Parts: sequence; structure tokens; C-alpha cells
Amino acid sequence: MARRPTIADVAQLAGVSRATVSFVLNNRPGVALATQQRVRSAAEKLGWTPSRSARALSTGRARAVGLVLTREPDLIGTDPFYPAFMAGIESVISETGDGLMLQMSRPGDEVEIYRRLAADRRVDGVFLSDVRLDDPRPELVTELGLPAVVVGAVESETGLPTVNLDDRPVVRNAVRHLVELGHRDIAYVAGPEEFVHARRRRQAWADALAEAGLPPGTSLPGGFTAEGGARATRALLDRPNPPTAIVYGNDLSATAGMAVAQDAGLRLPDDLSVVGFDDVPLASWTSPTLTTCRANPVLWGRAAAQALVEVIERGTATDVELDPATLVIRGSTGSVPVRGSR
Amino acid sequence: MARRPTIADVAQLAGVSRATVSFVLNNRPGVALATQQRVRSAAEKLGWTPSRSARALSTGRARAVGLVLTREPDLIGTDPFYPAFMAGIESVISETGDGLMLQMSRPGDEVEIYRRLAADRRVDGVFLSDVRLDDPRPELVTELGLPAVVVGAVESETGLPTVNLDDRPVVRNAVRHLVELGHRDIAYVAGPEEFVHARRRRQAWADALAEAGLPPGTSLPGGFTAEGGARATRALLDRPNPPTAIVYGNDLSATAGMAVAQDAGLRLPDDLSVVGFDDVPLASWTSPTLTTCRANPVLWGRAAAQALVEVIERGTATDVELDPATLVIRGSTGSVPVRGSR
Repeated sequence: MARRPTIADVAQLAGVSRATVSFVLNNRPGVALATQQRVRSAAEKLGWTPSRSARALSTGRARAVGLVLTREPDLIGTDPFYPAFMAGIESVISETGDGLMLQMSRPGDEVEIYRRLAADRRVDGVFLSDVRLDDPRPELVTELGLPAVVVGAVESETGLPTVNLDDRPVVRNAVRHLVELGHRDIAYVAGPEEFVHARRRRQAWADALAEAGLPPGTSLPGGFTAEGGARATRALLDRPNPPTAIVYGNDLSATAGMAVAQDAGLRLPDDLSVVGFDDVPLASWTSPTLTTCRANPVLWGRAAAQALVEVIERGTATDVELDPATLVIRGSTGSVPVRGSR
Repeated sequence: MARRPTIADVAQLAGVSRATVSFVLNNRPGVALATQQRVRSAAEKLGWTPSRSARALSTGRARAVGLVLTREPDLIGTDPFYPAFMAGIESVISETGDGLMLQMSRPGDEVEIYRRLAADRRVDGVFLSDVRLDDPRPELVTELGLPAVVVGAVESETGLPTVNLDDRPVVRNAVRHLVELGHRDIAYVAGPEEFVHARRRRQAWADALAEAGLPPGTSLPGGFTAEGGARATRALLDRPNPPTAIVYGNDLSATAGMAVAQDAGLRLPDDLSVVGFDDVPLASWTSPTLTTCRANPVLWGRAAAQALVEVIERGTATDVELDPATLVIRGSTGSVPVRGSR
């Protein structure tokens, strides 16, 4: 039995990169017409067409889109991002009665799950989130002929339409806001490093300190949880020179951090400034109210679903860069404490 | 074309109720053998068998279970129940690589969505939640031959396996706890009346007041939101004789209510006692910490998924009544204020 040709074979025959093949086969703009023709002709010679797989089997629409998360199931119930993101997706697809197929996967099973989704025609398209460097999925879905949209920033070219909302500018704004208030020792309580968005937020905090000409600050893991935020805050306040401000990876850890600081006798924001991330419904009701970064995962889910519907119906979609999150200044940030007052 | 026979036809021919037909066709225990035989023979005569639809088309498993919610999509992102419940489902089905098909439906489209899920063999079974009086879905899934599990309490017999966790005992315990602390004027801030669980919690509060020999208390709508909880709390505190304790439909509205009371100069729990529901991660980190009802929607989702897998594989499952939620007593409840101290 002849080995089925892959994108790598097409790229070699056409004398272009695999990314360029993905670009052409996903009908993305920006590839010279001559190159496009070379790729298509190479694909034809090798007998490679997306229609060999899922698209050819189509006897109507599956009327569902897929979201495969390589995470612990628990995460759906504890991180507010995915429920809100899914609400955004549903607000678009439920208009036509379509469903969302949610799959939790172990790291090694991922490829198999996408193959099955495509082969059994269980979904019309998929969202690719948490895309990593050298992620096999963009090429996989192209080979499977499975319409796809990349959600979030990617570090390398995927050849697929991308819907992104950049978390970094707002974190830099938060640090700038604290620097303007006179803070020089601004610590960070980070989310789990395995999440791209957690790493990016922490990196944006580090970059902003450097941009302000400040030395590198202290970052401790907070796990995006209340307990983790409390533990990291206690560790920071126990240091000989505790920070005068703490930026947190999310509101849950920030709110627990505020409670720890207040239990330790600190007045907020007089003795310590605190910034969160998410703008959860409670952020306006803590005491003091929480300065935070307002992301909009519902909007992000909507935009991603609209792009995926476009890819399913028209074969391609343009990239979408959503407005970045905004800083909401409330009561938990204030001027740096006067030296020696603590 | 002959009309396809329904459960009502089978019931009439067998001379039994439709619920009994459902019981027999879903292989539920407790029906006399003679009755079972009469029902099966009537079904056979009429040509009614579940295998006429989904089960007969089975060429293997769909490897997905379905959850159809007749709600606004937004709700997935704001009410913590469903994300946690879904996490519990995923913790079971992801073990075998199965997926969860999530559909949001408008009230009128519900029946059509279940029909399509069954006809297209898109799921192996479904969860029926928010079951109402005279709900058409239990009969519908029986007719469609679609394995199903009812989630939550039902007010009438469905003939389907049910997995329930009763919210009411813990709310009654919360009221009893307040009564023991000397409270006599205990108000309630309720969730949306269209949710069965919101109505049941409010009713349990009312029942507990009556059981304690107290007059009916004041209940105001809080919408399960922070804003709603704040608004209701302000209205309660503005009354000529404000309550000395408030029980809330969920933690989100309770936490906002605490902030409103503290802004109004009240000390908690000295001047006002507060009880929430959910035991969200932040409940141990508010100031004071929140006395609340610990439900376990993750466990509920797990149990429902295990029951559904059993129905899919073995044709039936026994009813499951989970341990009720428990009262977690923390810092927000205390003795009734001394008369005249406010």
C-alpha cells in the first residue's frame, strides 16, 4: 500500500516551505500566484487533496464545531476563561442550532482525537487553542481537510486563520500605572507556566519593569487559585523588603492576596497596591474594589466562532486581532507608601 | 404513510399509563412481570421499538454524550454550576476519549434538537436537566430510543434513571443555624425563578421559617448576580425593620451583599449575619469569611456521567441520590444583635 502523501512531500516537490503549502491549501492571502500554482500542481501530482478525507465524505453538515482541550477536566470548573469563551462560541452557533463538541484530551491522545473528529465527520471545524511551538495540529487539520481557526497568539506561522486578543499591552499598562504612582518594587504572582496566556502575562510584567528602567522583580507561582495567591502573597510579605505593589495573574489569586495582606494588618492601598486580571463580577465588590485588567473572553469566543463559520462556508477567513484588554482602575491601587511608614 | 406509533398508542393498547410504558421500555425495575409482558406485546403489535430509530442505525458508538441547555449562552460563563457539572462529566467520559456535545436551545427548538441528535446518531445518550412538570423530553427520548439520565429532582415520574442531589436540606440547616443564633427576622435573596434549583432553595428557606414557627420572611430577587445581590441587600437594609440575617441564593450575590452592608457601616456578623450557597473558592477569603452551603456540582456531573454510561452499555441504571450539600459555618454568621443596638 502506497504511503499517503503528506504536506512535507508537497512542500519538497514544490520547493517551498511547509508553511507555504499550508497557506495555499487553506486559501490564505499573500502567496504569489506562481507559487500557488506550483503548490497546487505538486499536490495534484502527488494525489494530495483535502477532499481525500473529511470533505469528500460530506453528505451534509455535521452541525457541530469542536474544541479539544489538553487539560485536566477540573479546569473547566475553576478557570473562568473557558466557560466564558464557550459562551461566546455558543452565542454564534446556537443561532443555527449547531452544537459544540467538547473533548478533554491527554497530551499523547490529541492527534488521535482530531483524526477521529475528522474521519467520522463529527464536526465541521475545530478551534485550535493553546498552540505551542512546533505544534503538530495546524498541519494535521490541513491534511485532514478539517476547517480550523487558531485561537490566540502563535509563535510560528500556521497557515491558518487566527483570532487573537493580546493580553500583554494591558499588563504593561498596569505596571506603568503603578510606576506612575511611585512604585519601584512591583512583584508578580503568576498562573501555571503550562498555559501560554499565563506565561505571556508574566513576561509582559517583566518587560514593563525593564521598559521602566527597573531591576527584575520577584515572581512567585500562584496557580491561578485562591490558595496559591494567598501562599505567594504571604511569602512576598514575609521578605525583608516586601514589595509595595503586587500584580496577579488573575482576580481569584489577587482577591485572596488582598485578604492575606489585610489579615497581616496592612491597609490597602495605603500600604500595598494590588492589581488582578479578568474583571470577574466580584471585582467591583471587594473591599477595596479591585484594580484589574478587563479581558473579554465572551467576545473572543464570538469572534472565533464567526471566523470558523466563515472558514466552513467559504474556505477561508481573514485574521482577526481583537482590541486588547483594558485596565480598570479601582480602589486597590494607590501611591507608594512613604518610606519608613511600614 | 402510516403515522408512526407513539408511547401513547402503546399505553392505550396495553391499558396502562404512559409512565408505565416508559418504565418498561427503559428496563426500569418495579413493574409486575405480567404488565411488562402486556406492554412489550402491545409495542410489538404496533411495530413500536426503540430499535426503529437510533439504536438500529448503530454502526458503532458515536463516542459522545449530549447536554442540551434551554438557556441564554451567557449563562455558561456566569453561573458556576454548569462549568463544574461539565467538568464532572468530562472527568468520566474523557477516560475513554469520548466527547460532550453541548447545545444551547431556544425553548421551542428543544424537541427538534433531540430528534436530530438521535436521528443523526450524533450522541450515544443525553442528560436531561431542568426537567419541568409535563416535560415532553422523557417520553421523547424513550420514543427515539436515546439513552438518557435525568439530572435533578423531578416533580413527576419520568420512567428514566435519575441522579439527584437535594439542595433543600442544607438551606433548611442554614436557617436552623441562624434560628439557634437567635435570629427571628431572616430574609432571602433569591436566584431567577425560572431555574428549578433557585426556586427550590427559596422554598426550603420558607419551609424552614415555618418549621421554626416564625412568620413568613421577606424574599427579594437577586438574579444570582453581584449587582442583583447588592440591590436586594440595599432594599432590605432600607426597610424600617431590616432583617438581622440574610440567606442568599448563591455566593456571588452574598459577597456583594456583604460589601453593601459594610459600606452602610454595619459590622459583620455583629450587626448582620450572611449565608451564601456554592462555596466558591473565594468564600474562605472574604472578610469576614462566608458561611455557605457546599454543593458539589463536579461530583454530581461525575455521577450523572457514570449513570449515563451504564444506561448506554447495559440498557438501564439505578437511581442515584447523592449526599445533600453541607453547611460550612465560617465568620459571616453570629448571634443576633442585641435589641436596640442598631
